[in-house]
Formats: sequence, C-alpha cells, structure tokens
Amino acid sequence: MKQSMEEPNEQNDAFSSNLIAIRRELHRYPELGWQEYRTTARIIEHLEKWGVEYHFGKEILDAELRRGFPDESNDKKAVERAIKETGREDLIEKMTGGFTGVIAVIKGEKTRSLKAPTILLRFDIDANELQECMSEEHRPYREDFVSQHSGVMHACGHDGHVAIGLGVIKQLQENRELFCGEIRVLFQPAEEEVRGAVAFAQTELTKGVDYMLSGHIGLKANRLGMIAAATTEFLATTKIKVTFYGKSSHAGNCPQAGQNALAAACNATLNILGISRHSEGISRVNVGTLCADGPTNVIPDYAILVLETRGSTDEVNQYMQKQVETICEGAATMEGCDYKIEIVGGAGCAQCNDELAEFVAEQASTIPFFKEVIDELEFSASEDVTELINAVSDNGGKATYMLIGSTLSAPHHNDHFDFDEAVLAPAAKLFFESILALCEERSQD
Amino acid sequence: MKQSMEEPNEQNDAFSSNLIAIRRELHRYPELGWQEYRTTARIIEHLEKWGVEYHFGKEILDAELRRGFPDESNDKKAVERAIKETGREDLIEKMTGGFTGVIAVIKGEKTRSLKAPTILLRFDIDANELQECMSEEHRPYREDFVSQHSGVMHACGHDGHVAIGLGVIKQLQENRELFCGEIRVLFQPAEEEVRGAVAFAQTELTKGVDYMLSGHIGLKANRLGMIAAATTEFLATTKIKVTFYGKSSHAGNCPQAGQNALAAACNATLNILGISRHSEGISRVNVGTLCADGPTNVIPDYAILVLETRGSTDEVNQYMQKQVETICEGAATMEGCDYKIEIVGGAGCAQCNDELAEFVAEQASTIPFFKEVIDELEFSASEDVTELINAVSDNGGKATYMLIGSTLSAPHHNDHFDFDEAVLAPAAKLFFESILALCEERSQD
Amino acid sequence: MKQSMEEPNEQNDAFSSNLIAIRRELHRYPELGWQEYRTTARIIEHLEKWGVEYHFGKEILDAELRRGFPDESNDKKAVERAIKETGREDLIEKMTGGFTGVIAVIKGEKTRSLKAPTILLRFDIDANELQECMSEEHRPYREDFVSQHSGVMHACGHDGHVAIGLGVIKQLQENRELFCGEIRVLFQPAEEEVRGAVAFAQTELTKGVDYMLSGHIGLKANRLGMIAAATTEFLATTKIKVTFYGKSSHAGNCPQAGQNALAAACNATLNILGISRHSEGISRVNVGTLCADGPTNVIPDYAILVLETRGSTDEVNQYMQKQVETICEGAATMEGCDYKIEIVGGAGCAQCNDELAEFVAEQASTIPFFKEVIDELEFSASEDVTELINAVSDNGGKATYMLIGSTLSAPHHNDHFDFDEAVLAPAAKLFFESILALCEERSQD
Amino acid sequence: MKQSMEEPNEQNDAFSSNLIAIRRELHRYPELGWQEYRTTARIIEHLEKWGVEYHFGKEILDAELRRGFPDESNDKKAVERAIKETGREDLIEKMTGGFTGVIAVIKGEKTRSLKAPTILLRFDIDANELQECMSEEHRPYREDFVSQHSGVMHACGHDGHVAIGLGVIKQLQENRELFCGEIRVLFQPAEEEVRGAVAFAQTELTKGVDYMLSGHIGLKANRLGMIAAATTEFLATTKIKVTFYGKSSHAGNCPQAGQNALAAACNATLNILGISRHSEGISRVNVGTLCADGPTNVIPDYAILVLETRGSTDEVNQYMQKQVETICEGAATMEGCDYKIEIVGGAGCAQCNDELAEFVAEQASTIPFFKEVIDELEFSASEDVTELINAVSDNGGKATYMLIGSTLSAPHHNDHFDFDEAVLAPAAKLFFESILALCEERSQD
Repeated sequence: MKQSMEEPNEQNDAFSSNLIAIRRELHRYPELGWQEYRTTARIIEHLEKWGVEYHFGKEILDAELRRGFPDESNDKKAVERAIKETGREDLIEKMTGGFTGVIAVIKGEKTRSLKAPTILLRFDIDANELQECMSEEHRPYREDFVSQHSGVMHACGHDGHVAIGLGVIKQLQENRELFCGEIRVLFQPAEEEVRGAVAFAQTELTKGVDYMLSGHIGLKANRLGMIAAATTEFLATTKIKVTFYGKSSHAGNCPQAGQNALAAACNATLNILGISRHSEGISRVNVGTLCADGPTNVIPDYAILVLETRGSTDEVNQYMQKQVETICEGAATMEGCDYKIEIVGGAGCAQCNDELAEFVAEQASTIPFFKEVIDELEFSASEDVTELINAVSDNGGKATYMLIGSTLSAPHHNDHFDFDEAVLAPAAKLFFESILALCEERSQD
Repeated sequence: MKQSMEEPNEQNDAFSSNLIAIRRELHRYPELGWQEYRTTARIIEHLEKWGVEYHFGKEILDAELRRGFPDESNDKKAVERAIKETGREDLIEKMTGGFTGVIAVIKGEKTRSLKAPTILLRFDIDANELQECMSEEHRPYREDFVSQHSGVMHACGHDGHVAIGLGVIKQLQENRELFCGEIRVLFQPAEEEVRGAVAFAQTELTKGVDYMLSGHIGLKANRLGMIAAATTEFLATTKIKVTFYGKSSHAGNCPQAGQNALAAACNATLNILGISRHSEGISRVNVGTLCADGPTNVIPDYAILVLETRGSTDEVNQYMQKQVETICEGAATMEGCDYKIEIVGGAGCAQCNDELAEFVAEQASTIPFFKEVIDELEFSASEDVTELINAVSDNGGKATYMLIGSTLSAPHHNDHFDFDEAVLAPAAKLFFESILALCEERSQD
Repeated sequence: MKQSMEEPNEQNDAFSSNLIAIRRELHRYPELGWQEYRTTARIIEHLEKWGVEYHFGKEILDAELRRGFPDESNDKKAVERAIKETGREDLIEKMTGGFTGVIAVIKGEKTRSLKAPTILLRFDIDANELQECMSEEHRPYREDFVSQHSGVMHACGHDGHVAIGLGVIKQLQENRELFCGEIRVLFQPAEEEVRGAVAFAQTELTKGVDYMLSGHIGLKANRLGMIAAATTEFLATTKIKVTFYGKSSHAGNCPQAGQNALAAACNATLNILGISRHSEGISRVNVGTLCADGPTNVIPDYAILVLETRGSTDEVNQYMQKQVETICEGAATMEGCDYKIEIVGGAGCAQCNDELAEFVAEQASTIPFFKEVIDELEFSASEDVTELINAVSDNGGKATYMLIGSTLSAPHHNDHFDFDEAVLAPAAKLFFESILALCEERSQD
Repeated sequence: MKQSMEEPNEQNDAFSSNLIAIRRELHRYPELGWQEYRTTARIIEHLEKWGVEYHFGKEILDAELRRGFPDESNDKKAVERAIKETGREDLIEKMTGGFTGVIAVIKGEKTRSLKAPTILLRFDIDANELQECMSEEHRPYREDFVSQHSGVMHACGHDGHVAIGLGVIKQLQENRELFCGEIRVLFQPAEEEVRGAVAFAQTELTKGVDYMLSGHIGLKANRLGMIAAATTEFLATTKIKVTFYGKSSHAGNCPQAGQNALAAACNATLNILGISRHSEGISRVNVGTLCADGPTNVIPDYAILVLETRGSTDEVNQYMQKQVETICEGAATMEGCDYKIEIVGGAGCAQCNDELAEFVAEQASTIPFFKEVIDELEFSASEDVTELINAVSDNGGKATYMLIGSTLSAPHHNDHFDFDEAVLAPAAKLFFESILALCEERSQD
C-alpha cells in the first residue's frame, strides 16, 4: 500500500520525524568534498538496515576522473576522524583515498514489461568550508545539532538532500511491488566546487537511464510549498588552481635576486577580476583563495590562486577560462616566475527536459503540500548535476533538476543558513510518486 | 685558574665537544619565536646543574611589551610538545602563554671595588619557519642532528649562539674568583621577525649596564678565524600585519554585493612594493605573506598581509611605514573594506661603541684562533639587538655586536644552512676573556 | 502631389542624388561634437534656400545644460575653420562657444482640426575622432569624398542622418498642404559620447510633442531593405572624467616627496575594469583615455581618465558609477593625491512606444524598398536619444527609434566605415509618409 | 692684456651685463631638445660677429646617433617658428630635421710648443617642457624676460650655460695671443632626457682632447660664491619609450573582442614602480608619461609609456632596465597585446679626473668671487655629459664637471626657477683662466 503523506497522520509524522533526525545527525558531522567518509558510512548503515543493494568505493569511482582532490594529509585526518566517529573501519578503509559516495539500487517487483524504465536519482552529500554560527539565534545551535566539525558546515542543504534520498529509498524498498524498473540512487560526493559529478557521469551509472530526477532545496524556491519542476540558466563553470613559482631571496640583503611569486599572483588576481564582459551572455569570475605564507624577510617564491569562471554558455565560460590562462602566463612572465594551471573542477551548461518537467509538475500538483508549482526557475549559478543531465540526455534519456521550496534563515553558504525541515517528507514523497507514475506510464507505452 | 683554549688539550677539547653537543641537541628541536619552551627549559636545566642564578617567565617579561605573538592554538601545541619532550611541566607551565627566554646572573667574587661593572650578554634562541633539508649532502641530516620539528629549523645559527652563551656562563661560574662585577646573560626569544628584544630593552635588565656584548655567527664573517668587533649598517625595520575585512557574497548569484578583501590586499601589495625610493638612504620593503583562503564561489571577505619595511635610518624606515599605512587605507577604501594595521615587530638603527669595539678587538687578537680581526663589518639587515644597544647607550653604557666568523654551507635562512662548529669554543672564550678584561680595567679606573 | 519614390523615375532619382550629394559634402567636412559649426551653417543654408523656419544658437541651447564641452582653444580653431570654409561668419558667430545644432519647424497647412499633432524628428550631426582610411578600397577615398578634416571622420553615419533629415524637410515644406500639425526637426549636436540630447530634452522643444520619430542607419540593421520600427536594449550609460592631482618631485633627487598621480590613475583603471558584474543585468565599463604626459624625470602630478559605465537598467549603471567613484577615492588616497570627478555625458534607458512602432512598421510595409520590416531590434549600446524619448514619454507623447537597414563596409567607428547610400531617399520617404499618416490619423480621432 | 673681473670696473660691468642680456634673451625664447633652431642660430650670430670659426648641422652630427628625436610635425613647427623669429632661413634650413647645436673652435696664437693642448668645453642649450610662472613674484616675469614660448621654459639654467660659453669664447677670441692650443666649444642640444651627448661623444670632437671642462649652475651649489671643482655620484640612466598595441573593439557591443593596450600599460606602470631595490647601489625608476587617448566607448588599442631608470652604477641601471623589459613583455602578454621598446636616451656613470679638478680648484681660489671652493659635490642625478667625460677619459684625456654656485629661487625644473645672474661673468672667467693656465702648464711640461 502506498504511503499517504498529505494528511497528517501518525505514519507520516513518523516518516517526517525520521528524515529530520537523519538530516540533523548529518548536520552535526559535516564533511568536505572527497572526505565524506562518515556521511557515506552512515548512508550505508541505513541501506544495510533496510536491505538495499549498494555499491561504493573503487567499484563505482575511477580515481583518475576525480577533480579537485584535497591533499593527502587532510585525507588521512578525515579518515581517522570518521573511523573514530563511526567505528566502521571495515567500510571506511574501502573508501580511503577519497573514494566516497555510494550508489543504491532498488529494483521494482511489479510484473515487468519489456519497457520497465531505469531511473536515476542524484543527491549530493558534501558540506562547506565555513565555521557555523554558534549563537542562540541560530536554530541548529539552539536545538543542539550545530556542526561538531570545526570550520565545516552544511550551509547548502545537502544534509537535507541526503535525508530526502534516504526517505525515497525507504519508501521504494518498502513498496517494491508497486513499480517495475530499476531505480539507481547516487549519493554524490564533492558537489561543492563542482568536482564530483563528472567522475560518475562518464561511468556505467548513466548508461540506459530513461529518466533522471534531481533537485535542490531552497535557492530561488525560498518558500515552503513552492516547487519548480525544472531549472534554467545553469552557468557553465571552471574551477582553476594556479601556482606561481618564483625565487626566494633575502628581502634586506639581496632583494634584486628574488622573483616574486606573490607579486605575480596579485597581478594575476587583479587582472582576472578585470576580464572583459562578454556580449554573448552572462559571465562571472572570482578568486576565492590567494595564499603565499612566507616570512616577511624573504621574497616569496610561491603563491597559490584558486579561482572560478562562469558563463551562461559554454562558449562564454571558455572565453573566461582562456583569458585566465593568458593573464597567468603574462603575470608569471612579468615577475620572471614559472607557473602551473590545474583544472580542479567544472561543469557545463545543461537543459532540463521539458516533457519530464511537465510530468513532474503534474505529480507535484497532486500533493497538497505543494501549493505553488512552477514550471521552471532560474539557477544563475553552477551545479555539476549538469554533467549527469548531459550524460543522460546524450544517451537519449530525460532529466530534470527541481528547486524544492523551503523558507531559509539566511542565504546559502552563510554561517546562519538553515531551512524549514517540513520540506523533507513531501519532497521525498514527490520523488517517490513521480517514480511510480513514470514506471506506470512507461510500462503502458 | 683561567681556562686556556688556544692550545689543543684535553680540557679544551672537552669544552668544545660539550658546546657542539649542546648546539646539536638544540638543532634537533628548533622552536619558533615565543614558543621556545623546550629551548628555555633545557637552558634552565644547564643553569640548574651549574648552580647559576636565573630568572624567567612573567618575572622578566611584561606580556604587553611582546610583539608578534603567535595565535593561541599554536601556543598550546608548542607547550604540549615541550612538556612531552622535556618532562619539565614545572618549568613550562610558568612560561605558558609565550613567556619564554631566561636571564642568568653570575656575580664575580673577586674583591669588589666600588666600580665593579655590570655587563650584559645577549644570545638569541629562536629558529626559523623552514623545512630543513633531508638529504645526505646536509651534515645535520648525515650526522643525525637534523630538525625533528617539521617545518622549523635553526637556519640562522641561534643554536650556536645558545651554545656559546652557555659556554661563557659555565666558564664564568667556574671562575667567579677571577672577576668582580655582575654579568647578566639574556637568552632572548623571538629575534626572528625582530619581535623579542624590545620587551627586554624597556625593563630593569638594561638599567645600570656598563657594557653589553653580543654578536652573530656568520653573515659577512664567513670564514673561520675572522671576527669583526663591531657591526655597522643595521637597517631599521618594522614588521606589519594588515587585515582587510570585506563582505562575502556568492560570486555567481550576487557578485555586486561583495566587498572584495582579497582585491584590496592585492592592490595594497603591488603598491607597497612600489613605494618610492628615498633619497636620504637605503630603503627596503617586502610582503612575505598574503592569505585569503575562501572557496572559489564566494567573494573573499578577509585577507591578511604580513610585511616589513626597512631603512638605513629611522627616518627612512618611518617614511616607508607611513606609506604602507596610506596605501592600506586607500586600498581598503577602493574596495569598500575595513582594515586593521598591527605592528608585530621592529627595531631601530643603532651604533656600536667604537671604544668598546676596539677593546674587544684587542682581546680577540690575543686568541690565536682569531686570525682575521676586523674593526667592523656591515650588517645591511635588521636585528632587534639594536633595541638593547640603544637602551644601554641611552643609559650611558657601551655596547657592541660582533660578527663571529664561520664557514657557512649555505646562506642564512636557507634549508641547507650549517656552520663550522669549531667557532663555538673560541667565541665563548672571547666573551669570557673580554669580560675578565673589562672587569679588570674598569676596577682599575 | 505626394512624391512617389517606389518606382524609379526621374524625380525620384533626382531626390536621391540630391541626398547623396548632401551626405557626401558633409562626409568631406566632419566635425566633432559641440564643434559642428560648418555642419550647422550648411544645414541652415538649405533651410534658408527652402524658406523653412529655423532656430539656433543660444535661442535653443542653455550653456549650463551642455555636457562634455571641449576645451576653449579647440573651439576657437573649429570656429575659425568653419568661417573659412563657409564664409558665413554671420551664422557662426552666433554659435561660437559651442552653440551648434539647429531646429527647423514646418507647419502643415491642411485645414487644421483641434487635434493637429506636434511631431518631433531628431537627427544627430556630429562625427568621430578617427583618421579616415586613405586607400583605394575605401569608397569615400576612391570617389573623392573622404574627410578633409584630419583625425575626424563620419564613421557612424550621422552624415546620412542629416541628409535624411533635410530630405524629409524638403518634402514636408513642398507638401505643406498635405498635412496639418507642427513638425519640429532637431539636428542635434554631440551625440557621440552621449552629450548633446540632454540639453534639448529639458527645453520647450519636447513640450507638447505627440509623436517623436528618430532612428539610425546600420547597426544590427545591416542589409539594404531591412527596417526595425523600434529599438530595444538601450544601455544606460555615464561618461566620466576623473582628474588626479598629485605632487611633482624630481624622480632622481627626491622621489619620496612626490605624490604620484599616474600611479593613482593606473590603480583606478585596473580596478575600474575589475568592478564586479551585477546579477540584475548587463553591465559594461571601459576606460578610453588615460593621460599623464610629463617628463620622465618628474613624478607625475596629474593624470586624467575618461571612462564610461553602462547598464541594461538605470540601477545597474548607477551601481557601476558608484563603484567608479569609490575606486577613484581609494586610488587617490593610496597615493596621497586629490581628485575630481566630472560627469561629462550620459543617457538612461528608454522604451520605444509599441503602438507608434507598429504604426511606423505599417507605413514601412507600404514602401516596396523595405522588404524586411521588423518590429524591433536590440541596440545593446547607448544613445542619448533616450533622453528625448523619455522626455516625450513623460509628457504623454509616443516615441520610437528605428534601425534603418543598409549594407555596411565595416563596423561603426571603424576607419573603413561606409554605408550604401541607396537607403537615404527611402528612409526620408518613410519619415515623410509616417508623418502624413500620423497627422491624418490623429486629426480623425 | 687679460681681462680682470675681480674688481668692479666698467669693463667688467659691461662684460657681465652683456652675458646677462644674452641669458635673458635666450630665456625669453626657450626651445626643447633637438629643436634649438633659434638658440643655435643666435649663438652662430654671435660667433659670426666675433669672427669665430664654427661648425654645425650635418657636418657635426650623425642622424643615426641621435636619441629621443621628437616627431616630425613638431619639428616642422619649431623650424617655422625659428625662421620667423630670426629671419635666418639660411642657417636654419641647414639644421632642419633636428641638426641643432654648434661647435666653435678657437686656436690660440701664442707660440705653439709641440704640446699645445686641445681643450673641450661643453655647454648644454635646451630648455624644459614646462609652463613658466606668470606672476609678479617671479623675476623673469617681473623684469619682462619670461618665456614667450608657451609650455617651454629654461628651468634648468641652460640659458646661463650658453651665456657663460659665449663669454668664454669672446674672451678667448680677444686674447688669442695669450694661449696656445685648440679650444673646442660644444653647444650641445638635448641634454634634458639625456639624449644629445652620445651623438657627439662618438665623433671626432672628443678625439685628441687633453682636457675637458664643463659644469652646471646651481643644484647642490646653491649659494653665490660656492664652486665645486668636480662632481660625484652621477647616476647612470636609461630613458625608455614603450608602446603597447592592442585591438580596439566597441566597449558596449563586443568588449570581449578587445585587447586592452591601456590595461597593459597600467599593469606595466605599477609593476615598473615596484621593481625591487638593488643591494649594490642606489636605484631609481619613474614613469613620466602614460598616454592612451581614445574615445570612452572603444577598448584602447594603443598606449604609450615613457619612463626612466637610474642606478648609482651601470650594473644597477642595467638591472633596472632589464626588469622594465621583462615587465613590459609580461604586461603585453597578459592583455594579448604586442609591444615595442625604444631606448630614447641614456647616460652612464662617470668619474671626474681628480688632478684636473684640483687644478681647477686652484684657479677658482684665485678669483675673489669664489669664496667657497669645494673639491667635489654629489650630483645624485643624471647628465649626459658623462658620455663626453668617458669618451675623453677613454682617449687618455682628463675631464671635470663643476657645480657653479648660485642662489636659486626654486628647485630646478620648477616653474619658479631662476638663478642669480651675478654668477655668469665669474664663471666665464674661471673657464677662461683655467684654459690659460692649462695651456701654460701643458706647454711647459
């Protein structure tokens, strides 16, 4: 029997409470991209409990395809902490070296027609590098689920995404007789800095997928009950790390012998911020990190930049990226430095499928919680889900990315960020109902 | 009976070996400025063993006078490590919070005339932030006394200075009957970045001092047997930390709302490097650190600069410092940022006393080891010993700072730096002999 | 009897040839904004010849309202040249001091209803600061109407605009019996750098205007026979002149005493180019001029910037302008300089009236020459006609700005720019027919 | 009979008045480097009058060796003005194209020994690009000899140098029987921006020269009666013109297509100002001119820098020059621009000959006017006389450059600059007496 969540009842309340509890536990222990050891282990523990098939580690992830991998010493610390926190060394050792994330698979048991569809769901699981607000006006602090990991915070709602994903899986697993088809659920690492999706987009995961459903809490869907069935204006983006190598020299005794890597980095930064606008579309550029941390009496011999470009078309983003490369070459030349450019993340533009979005919008309309169903909203930012959308679309499938409304206490990536958890259960229900309906429709074709 | 070191003999060999052992042990465990917990404890253990009077902790150091104090979390780690390494929690807890350094006092017991002099010796004890070279061609590695503290290294010879200081003390203590007067020996923390001396210069330590002897191994005295009795061309210097505070904003969704602290820091850096030369003397400027380490998709809301100015006169250095302040104000204004400027270190110019230098040169000439006795050498860099020299001079005393020749394996502050330890015993002897002679002469006046 | 131009006939040929001749003569003697002495005098000579009422000089122009006025010595030279070229000292002395431009008035003599409309036409008359191409592949050179004024060129088609305007006037004047109403024709100076229109927008000229017709040859209407009845995406713009005042000093003897205005200007420039994009719309910024022209051995004590900001909304442009002001303040502070900011030009956004555009499109459709009638085209640049459009709209009138198709030999503002003059007569006819139709319709209301 | 100037008498007064008149007339008509047409013609007129042999034009100047030649249109205007002012088209046409300057030759008629010396005198003749002060407190204005050439001013005393030079020649010519030897007097163009001397240093002029006497009014010799017989601390210098070539594009329609030459120039400027100090000596750098003067709506496609480097040794100056070149390469690369570097002036370091200086000091001591005879003074700036000094020295001759004391009303290159003309006659006398003495001594060897 299908769960019915629209009317408040004990079962629904329990389901909702459960998802809130899952979300809050994740919120307490946020992890950065490629370091979601504890998060992955906890997801797996749920899957184990429910008897759901799952795959993880090197089985699903090719080391070469991962972008923006953090340095080894940080990885080691993250592994140690996760083992300490979960006691699941058995799981975590299989992920060690940044093989985080997990794919769950639920196969419907309704009599299968030849056309039983394959559906991919995607939920991102990583958190932000940010110190969470520690004061009474911030609910996670007040209600005691504030981050216990110093300097890391779920400030983008991915904790909620995981809770929704687990909620959908639980419902699917408990209602296998209601649908045919194969449901693959990707809990994706390293969405922040758009690093993770590309490693999955190029694997078997996206092969044979008929439909892909995904989404994000909040953003322009900033009211409870609001839902956009599709998202437009994904900005293509590239995340770039630049290292300048100069030559150190004593700043008092022999300044002329130095080659100032910091000066190169400063010139690069100011000129990167000054890259010309592009008349063919929106462009963005930001340098998030510049670091040269030597003593005051030594001409700095290295400096690191980490930056991003964006464009409302792949062409505009490529123009921005090209300009960054030219500027870094010139800045290095100017100071007699060497330099290295690494692409550490990125995602292209993508288009949601109108037909699928319309179908999802219809499903949403049947759930009383969603009082404001919108065809589409602008994203005006970047998400590596576009890599998956494009992979699915290229293979003939249909994909959409929803914006799932919730009241926000502060903008995303702010240390006061929080959302109204009442959205979790209805969102899970929407995924669940949409899957059921897609399987039904498809098998009737 | 006076020690005689000029002729190789067993006693001399033992003395020399002892100093080399002290130096090597310190070399293995280098500590940064204001964190010389282990170093101070080890010096005290020697003093205790020899029965020398000593003073340390808050007794000798006013917290308010210290410059460039590191952040608390680093201090805590340094304390814990030192306790673990020495087992002397009793000593280290009295230093906790950066109260490092120690003053030894030896009082001569020769029949005292009214004019028995007070003599100050100063040896600096801190190490450099630098990863020591770990390969066979580097003697400390080859002979197994390479730094065990990752990222920290005695690359300026202060380990040798401590060894010399302890050598002098041992000789003085064992020969108290040979001299009258009071000998104060300051083992000074935080000379690197010229932070520590000022806190001692303004205390009782420098009051009533008739003579001050100090010096440095190496620099332009780069041959064994060479010694300069005085040093000229100290550059006045100021070490400055600047923090820019901006406003973060999502770099994709709302770039216009940001106030870019990193851009302010880059503008400040390039313009600080471009401060006009001064026609009245040598000037120097360097930005050693610029750090803003946020995510790529957020306009940076803070950035830190650490920099230094220098001048061959106090006026020139003050001009440089003033320009830095003006530039930071403008750079902050340009980006709509706030900013804060902190002076984290500094030292003025100073003049060695010619008469005292001549006297010391005469003493050096009587020690066969010193084959090349020079009146003075140029320093062309900064040393906070100038603060002590000026305090002593202002009180009517005479001070000098020697350059003590030793063959160097690489320039100072280089990861291959090492010096010829054969210098240690003769250098200690020169201090010792000079003290004896000064006491003698003074009491004959 | 109405002229009929669609069928080639002698009369039409003569009309077309006449307009071409007018255009070519203007092309030979281009003048910069506020210096269109000869151009204005020649227009007046035509009006005199045809017996058309006209107004010019201080009668129509308030000195205080003019923006971006050139310096006096250039004005004097321009006056002298124009007198020499035209022999019309009587006219030119009334314009001296930059009172260029002329308003022609033609009153229809058809029996007047109470509702006879007032219609404003606007044609811009100034040329560009650009050396025209002097080689055979450039038709104006080949056919001997290349610019005779060194460094100035009609590279934007305003010579054609004047020819069209005179063509309309001639037809109106010769056919006064065919229409009622008052037709005001503004030959506007200083459109380049969007300086001139604002001075007319705020006068009696725009009062009581029911319809305003205006337009531009070329741009996105880059084929003969193409016409857009309205223009969208005018970018709001501000033209800004910034002067930095520093303090000179000998760069060898006393560099520290200087306050470097050029350094301030360079910092301002790079940071102005780096103003953050705005998420609410298109923004643009450019520094066209930076000039500090002192000797190499003197620290520069002044520097001039001339720049522009743009925005697809007035708000975005105001944001850009505000950032420029902040940056200049900071850049001046950084170098210890003073500074002055002057607004030397600007225009807001504006909307063409849909109803009027539709009406004009209908008229165009009746002229066989216009084979490609389009509702609207994007401008994506700035034009001070928006000031007139807004003034007319604010007073309850309707205005449009057409893009009048012509094949171009090179982009606007390029030294090879030329257009197909076959557009001139049909364009004049479109204005004429539209006026007749508007008068007819209005008087039938 | 030798002139006697020490005692005021009619003859002396007349001589002095004459020199003052010459200086004032030159002061009224200052000319920039390589444009000293009128100045040269007037010098020649004096030489003609006195029957002195002279050489000028292409006879003495190789076009290829001239540096920093101004553009042709300015040259043409300068020629026209000089012809108009002097009526000496016969002379000026021989100089046209920048062949200014003149060499006078006076041969002593005293019985010649084999060893009769050849002596070179050098006086520079050009003025500064500067608008002279036009108010009562400025004597040249008050006494009506203020510059009649707008924007040009003798603000460095070269008008006085010419007067002294002519004074010496007149005395030599009138007293040919008193000396043997050949006296060559170079009136050198284009000393400002150190452009002219190099073209003469490499010619026959310096061949066989035994002694060279030269000097400058004022600078550190800033009191009447003071004279330094030699000058030290000439700074080597290079004057550099850099042109950046980008690509223009409409700043509104297509900003991404531009290659911003102005941005390249700004980056170059700020980084050139930031070139590291050199520990081996004094360095200086200044950008005097940056000019890009396009319209605000076009990305600038060219920009010009004119700058100078200096060093207290040739090595330091070469280091500075090398850094400029590297920075310009990088700045161009950063903006996708091309660039061109031209050396437009320069001079090395040089040493005055001690022996000659001592000789001259002795002569000065015999002239009562010179109450303060100093061995040497520091120059701390650049002068292309060093090129002549070095050429003479390299050929075995002896050279000196005196600083000739005079009270100054303002620093050199200031629009209020003026000096006390009482210095002119005694200075001429010192040259004259020194020549006589040198000839005497030499022929007695």
